[in-house]
Amino acid sequence: MRLRKVKNANEKIAQYPSLAIQNPSNFKGKWRELFGNEYPIHIEIGMGKGKFLLEKAIKEANVNFIGIEKFDSVMIRAVEKIAPYELPNVKLLNIDALILQEIFNNNEVDKIYLNFSDPWPKSRQEKRRLTSNTFLPIFQAILTDCGDIEFKTDNQKLFEYSVMNINKNNMEILDFSLHLHQRDESIITTEYEDRFSKLGQPIFYIKIKFRGEKL
Amino acid sequence: MRLRKVKNANEKIAQYPSLAIQNPSNFKGKWRELFGNEYPIHIEIGMGKGKFLLEKAIKEANVNFIGIEKFDSVMIRAVEKIAPYELPNVKLLNIDALILQEIFNNNEVDKIYLNFSDPWPKSRQEKRRLTSNTFLPIFQAILTDCGDIEFKTDNQKLFEYSVMNINKNNMEILDFSLHLHQRDESIITTEYEDRFSKLGQPIFYIKIKFRGEKL
Repeated sequence: MRLRKVKNANEKIAQYPSLAIQNPSNFKGKWRELFGNEYPIHIEIGMGKGKFLLEKAIKEANVNFIGIEKFDSVMIRAVEKIAPYELPNVKLLNIDALILQEIFNNNEVDKIYLNFSDPWPKSRQEKRRLTSNTFLPIFQAILTDCGDIEFKTDNQKLFEYSVMNINKNNMEILDFSLHLHQRDESIITTEYEDRFSKLGQPIFYIKIKFRGEKL
Repeated sequence: MRLRKVKNANEKIAQYPSLAIQNPSNFKGKWRELFGNEYPIHIEIGMGKGKFLLEKAIKEANVNFIGIEKFDSVMIRAVEKIAPYELPNVKLLNIDALILQEIFNNNEVDKIYLNFSDPWPKSRQEKRRLTSNTFLPIFQAILTDCGDIEFKTDNQKLFEYSVMNINKNNMEILDFSLHLHQRDESIITTEYEDRFSKLGQPIFYIKIKFRGEKL
């Protein structure tokens, strides 16, 4: 998600140090210590303005949520939206998903949400897609053996690409829908998803896990 | 595909013995002998009225096509449509796909087309779907190691089921489209597909092969 540039976004984010963690690599292997419990850790990569993460965290109090957003001008929107709720089970990180292994130990994460990720449509941009071989090995490393990834998008080409690449990587498909909102009525949505779904357009959805041993 | 019952369909079919093969199990392992060449063998299961098979056979003269249809009232339509063309590379069989291994040797078939197969939507009907575990092992047996299956449908639920079951069976996805006609303009269609596609509805498509050794 792109937004207009927010002036001094970084400084504004720094005003919420208990929600927006400033040096997240300090907590590598210690996220449950920080949360003060042994609940599972679910992360959303590219959380945008944070609506999905906020609603999930309210609904699932026994899960620790970590929202990840690369762009500080977007991150500050999520921070300002979520901070007033003072939720004990949410942390937000302003980092690039490429460095996830500096932030999490192997097997430290129980679930990854990818919601409406940037499609990077050109062939030469393939490596930037979150379902490409740039990211899948990173996700496999930080996920537990039973951990899964839930991916939804309205972008047909990105979804087709993702299904092909998931198959190439021999991953197991746990759930699959070509029209998520037709099937489920009580799903938690992103801002973008609401706008899109109201037009009657299908949301594509897949839930997957890695098969077999970690590399 | 269901059609109104045609009276004496069987007797009518029998009037075209060189096109509609009467005792197909006699040719098990000998289909290339019957065709008199060493070209690949492509079969369509559930050929309906035969438009797809006819157009394929005209376009791909160096492929032997065998159309399979369970219902004689449908079969006779395909026979009467295709017979006047006197194509040397087409044979039609009025059989149930369940007995394919009585008709073909292991490794005798190079490609299987499944076009708009009956969705059998109820859970208890799962076993009848052509992408279920009733049929996939049969297909694997008769296909060569490099043989593939091309499946298209407008039925979202059948397609979702098929993708899940293909993944469970560890098959390789060679191609995948959620809107085939948006992507390719020169594809050969079935009668049903033409009607459906004109409404702008998506045709779902997947091309797959079995991985690894035959069981």
